[in-house]
Amino acid sequence: MAKRVAVLLSGCGVFDGSEIHEAVLTLLALDSHGAEAVCCAPNIDQRDVINHVSGQPMPEKRNVLIEAARIARGKIEDLSRITPAVVDALIMPGGYGAAKNLCSYAVDGSRAKVHPEVSRVIYDFVQARKPIGAICIAPVVIAAVFRDTKEIIPTLTVGNDPKTVLDLSTMGADHIECSPREIIVDRKNKIVSTPAYMLAKGPAELYIGIEKLVKEILELCESN
Amino acid sequence: MAKRVAVLLSGCGVFDGSEIHEAVLTLLALDSHGAEAVCCAPNIDQRDVINHVSGQPMPEKRNVLIEAARIARGKIEDLSRITPAVVDALIMPGGYGAAKNLCSYAVDGSRAKVHPEVSRVIYDFVQARKPIGAICIAPVVIAAVFRDTKEIIPTLTVGNDPKTVLDLSTMGADHIECSPREIIVDRKNKIVSTPAYMLAKGPAELYIGIEKLVKEILELCESN
Repeated sequence: MAKRVAVLLSGCGVFDGSEIHEAVLTLLALDSHGAEAVCCAPNIDQRDVINHVSGQPMPEKRNVLIEAARIARGKIEDLSRITPAVVDALIMPGGYGAAKNLCSYAVDGSRAKVHPEVSRVIYDFVQARKPIGAICIAPVVIAAVFRDTKEIIPTLTVGNDPKTVLDLSTMGADHIECSPREIIVDRKNKIVSTPAYMLAKGPAELYIGIEKLVKEILELCESN
Repeated sequence: MAKRVAVLLSGCGVFDGSEIHEAVLTLLALDSHGAEAVCCAPNIDQRDVINHVSGQPMPEKRNVLIEAARIARGKIEDLSRITPAVVDALIMPGGYGAAKNLCSYAVDGSRAKVHPEVSRVIYDFVQARKPIGAICIAPVVIAAVFRDTKEIIPTLTVGNDPKTVLDLSTMGADHIECSPREIIVDRKNKIVSTPAYMLAKGPAELYIGIEKLVKEILELCESN
């Protein structure tokens, strides 16, 4: 049976949603390794809409699920329907959407609040011992979920950005520096992370780390 | 010297812009084979904005260049700046944006009008003997550009959809049926096409055809 892997999107575009290359290369790696991707996103408004030419906010509203459906070619689930019972693993691509829409890291730093549906799915997957992959900035979402627990201390990488590394450790996570061509595997909690565009120079280097993450996630689906 | 290849985008999302997987896998193949991608798009309004969950139009306006910048991570050129003097080749990913924004094929069929900047760039590249790649539905743009000329009869593929194949031949192009894992090479006009999501079942199969197209385009840059 092909493994079914939820890909948790946060919009469509690096500055206000999912980083598109990271999301698509996750889908490519899953398909290339025989897994089925189940794209999903929360049905909420984006925190903001950024003009990707100027970098400035645009005076409009967009919905995370509807924009994320662009990456999913229309085939997308509301995050509320995703549980450990219906998929084998969860992967979160990066992009500012992870830090703006899935949680409030972009504005609140180490005091970030996580959207309740996102928090619920991450907590439930770790409890169910189903693997979670976190790409680029997405590890901050996991750190924020487990900030106030003492029993789960995730080991994560966000590359080597000093501020983000400090915030991770303030939130109680262990951080390990890592190349975009490598992954950090937290076997105890079945969490895999890779720095991706925190450090990668282009799509080819990006794919090296993301493909390793996907292969490790699929192997962890088989382990106890 | 790395080859510089313009990637002509038409928005961001399969139903009203560039097909995102086709665009990103074009960027991956270019980077993997040592070429530099120069993303570009016309600075015009989209024909429409489609909700990618419901498939229905949304009552808003979006700009092709600004939305395409999402795929390009903000690094994008106005199409008006792209000429055969500044890049070595041109590749057009598919998606309805090619048939709605780059030309009017989606509404006018074989009588499609091509946006003047798009027409100019395609005509100039063929005249300058610089290669052009056309993915998925994008070959209809090329057929429409040369519909009224007799001296250039492009050989193209759009897979095997009977209506699209008929429209291509009505526009005077030669059509060859092709698998999404293969490419059609028109050596005389240096035009390469592949059916991509006209037929491909997923990103892995998609990448096989797109990578072959990119490799052929880079080889054609070297030939006379």
